[in-house]
Amino acid sequence: MNYKLMLRTLGRTLQLEALCLLLPMTVSLIYREDPRPFFFTILIVGVLGTLLVRLRARPDFYSREGFAVVGLIWLVLSLFGALPFWFSGEFASYIDCFFEIVSGFTTTGASILTAVEPLPRGILFWRSFSSWIGGMGVLIFTLAFLPKVGGRTQVLVQAEATGPVSNKLVPKTALSARILYLIYIALTVIEIIALCIAGMPLYDSVVTTFATVCTGGFSVMNTSIAAYGLPACEIIITIFMLLCSLNFALFFLVITGRIRQALGSDELRFFLLAVALSVGIIFVNILPSYDSAGRALLDTCFQVATIVSTTGFATTDFALWPTLSQFVLILLMFLGGCAGSTAGGLKASRVLLMVRCAHRSLRRLSHPRVVKVVKLDGKTVDEDTLNTVFVFFTCFFLVLGGTCLIVSLDGFSMTTTCTAALACLSNIGPGLEAVGPMGNFAAFSGLSKVVLSVAMLIGRLEIFPILILLQPATWRRN
Amino acid sequence: MNYKLMLRTLGRTLQLEALCLLLPMTVSLIYREDPRPFFFTILIVGVLGTLLVRLRARPDFYSREGFAVVGLIWLVLSLFGALPFWFSGEFASYIDCFFEIVSGFTTTGASILTAVEPLPRGILFWRSFSSWIGGMGVLIFTLAFLPKVGGRTQVLVQAEATGPVSNKLVPKTALSARILYLIYIALTVIEIIALCIAGMPLYDSVVTTFATVCTGGFSVMNTSIAAYGLPACEIIITIFMLLCSLNFALFFLVITGRIRQALGSDELRFFLLAVALSVGIIFVNILPSYDSAGRALLDTCFQVATIVSTTGFATTDFALWPTLSQFVLILLMFLGGCAGSTAGGLKASRVLLMVRCAHRSLRRLSHPRVVKVVKLDGKTVDEDTLNTVFVFFTCFFLVLGGTCLIVSLDGFSMTTTCTAALACLSNIGPGLEAVGPMGNFAAFSGLSKVVLSVAMLIGRLEIFPILILLQPATWRRN
Repeated sequence: MNYKLMLRTLGRTLQLEALCLLLPMTVSLIYREDPRPFFFTILIVGVLGTLLVRLRARPDFYSREGFAVVGLIWLVLSLFGALPFWFSGEFASYIDCFFEIVSGFTTTGASILTAVEPLPRGILFWRSFSSWIGGMGVLIFTLAFLPKVGGRTQVLVQAEATGPVSNKLVPKTALSARILYLIYIALTVIEIIALCIAGMPLYDSVVTTFATVCTGGFSVMNTSIAAYGLPACEIIITIFMLLCSLNFALFFLVITGRIRQALGSDELRFFLLAVALSVGIIFVNILPSYDSAGRALLDTCFQVATIVSTTGFATTDFALWPTLSQFVLILLMFLGGCAGSTAGGLKASRVLLMVRCAHRSLRRLSHPRVVKVVKLDGKTVDEDTLNTVFVFFTCFFLVLGGTCLIVSLDGFSMTTTCTAALACLSNIGPGLEAVGPMGNFAAFSGLSKVVLSVAMLIGRLEIFPILILLQPATWRRN
Repeated sequence: MNYKLMLRTLGRTLQLEALCLLLPMTVSLIYREDPRPFFFTILIVGVLGTLLVRLRARPDFYSREGFAVVGLIWLVLSLFGALPFWFSGEFASYIDCFFEIVSGFTTTGASILTAVEPLPRGILFWRSFSSWIGGMGVLIFTLAFLPKVGGRTQVLVQAEATGPVSNKLVPKTALSARILYLIYIALTVIEIIALCIAGMPLYDSVVTTFATVCTGGFSVMNTSIAAYGLPACEIIITIFMLLCSLNFALFFLVITGRIRQALGSDELRFFLLAVALSVGIIFVNILPSYDSAGRALLDTCFQVATIVSTTGFATTDFALWPTLSQFVLILLMFLGGCAGSTAGGLKASRVLLMVRCAHRSLRRLSHPRVVKVVKLDGKTVDEDTLNTVFVFFTCFFLVLGGTCLIVSLDGFSMTTTCTAALACLSNIGPGLEAVGPMGNFAAFSGLSKVVLSVAMLIGRLEIFPILILLQPATWRRN
């Protein structure tokens, strides 16, 4: 392992974090709050980052270093990003601060806070802003790493290539990254303006938008989006949650006029079908308990969007809905958004590939002489990619089982335990019962909070980097 | 599709069922009960079977016919096997009868009966005997079909081969089948004798043994094994439940003196490790709530054995145990026994292969130049087999999700709904809460009972045959 280069990379990231912390410090100054939690953190992070960057390192960098460093970046960002919370004195323990900031950076939106409204605005801004930074990080991470591990964001890279696909991924990636940043920032600006027009105060619009476009779900209100009582805002947020769970490469295709190609995406169609079916089932299921069909439809759409996009905002307590509706939401928690989005979960393209692969196997068993390949968007998916998808699926369930096992030590109900683990691993935020939309993660033990934080990181980084980090073989010399 | 040959095969099976029904009729005559439910069923089944057998058919038979006919055999056996229950007048509806007999033939042991003790002894005998027949059917089915779908029972076939493995699978299979029958019958006889010596009445020993060696779990007591209050019997049953969740080929190896080869089985070691770990965790977890450590250990061992072997007997209500213990049991519900046993679930060898495959992928990601194969018992497992294992896993979860979705219409709690579906799909019997060890499936709607019955069949036949049966493409001409 090239430790020096890894430390240098971490140093560069810490410098960026110090830079990012200037924004919440400015907010706390604007609202005449104590800026010291931010000031001290910036000092620590900035100095440490600058020291690390000065390390001289050989430039050789292999894939295990790549995976390990990605895991470490998220971990180190969180360890230091928790400091403003800790310095503010508003949190019970450092573990709580760590959980909250991991929940931010991983765009999960699970919270250990029983009440958010009394907190300083600067602190709440950092909480929401961290998830916005996390969302940006995920877009780039996906772009750089997913092609290797069987995801499918090469679309963008391919879309740019005028001739046959070039081998030089890095310059392409850099250009792609810039395009993704622009789309992300554009979505942010448009939503802020839309929410302001719909009647939400500016500060609330900004932090809510941060939590929407990254599909995070942190709110500055105890009762989340329900607190505003603005249906127009709920509609806007629903639309943006769904938009941000689509592959961002599709926006690029639309912008460059290739709308037909964008609409032809298998993953998009599968995802929209799942959303439409879920909305249909839940709407029919909850309608009898509502006075107004409009309200029922809006609640249905909002909840489906908030869960499938793995955002986790709340307008109503779906934990009170019939079991069928709750179960549909649980299935959506597994599904998650599209690959190349800021959403979490298994991802629509993976589920689609697995379904197609299962279908092929059944065909093969009954018609052994038929040779069939699995296709996505008309292109053959090679067997290695399919294998990686299955391994991803296996690891997802193994990690889910392991997390539930440790969290179950706390003795909460089975539903609370399992949905808490799933909500963290899929980066959603709320689960059911004690961790439902109107609940929080405060009551868990320190051990559970740490384990759930690790689950959030594992889920956010598409499982492999953190598992590689945890493997002893990674750290052995070879 | 060669329909005539399929019908002939079904006819032969119905004739066998008529023959099997003579035994419970004899029991009902011995206990001076009404034998007519059995008599009428034997008449119907016997006549229909004989008519079907007289069909003339071409002898060509391909794999889709094979899969389809296996699914149909189990279905038709159940449809007619439910008749004695229906004629007895003790059941509320034909659906209840169907659920109960499917639960028998699939060795699940889930029951819609709220009290079993008032039922005639002949009817209860048929209920337990059906699961014993099912267990035998599964052993043969596994032997004939699993090699094609990535399971691993060729050991027995290989063990017999004196020279290089022969291509003529059928004669080998017939011989293997006879060996499996003998082992199965030997286990049955030994357990009956052991239970009698330990103080259980003969009738109870016989029906309990039927339900043990097939890992079914039907009991003739309302409170299952707890009713007898005989720790010696509990120990005997624990041992036999565990024995019957091992690959029966291992017994063959032991009998023929190849003990070292048997003990070297990767699956056996993995399975025993899982059992030992579960016992350890649960014992420590439940000890504080027990007065006697011995009783706690016995309850732990019995419950772990009854769940991992997918039997489903009860000596205590584990639904009252701490969440951690309950969750360990849920994980064991997924695991199930070894391939080539009468147990259900995902099977230890599949889980082991998936874990090894996941480990390989992580190694590959961090060390791309290392080429690694996945091995089992020192032999390389080919990629097609691994793919089938993953597809099995995927289908298992898709079917589980679909079953939960429909059952959730009944509005039971999430835990009841999900564990009911899992307990049926894994052929265990009891789940948690309303369907816990002291509960039953009576309260579910007709639709849910049918869907859960189908889930039992899907689980029992290793998923693929029933899915192939449900595929329209199977029935199309080609």
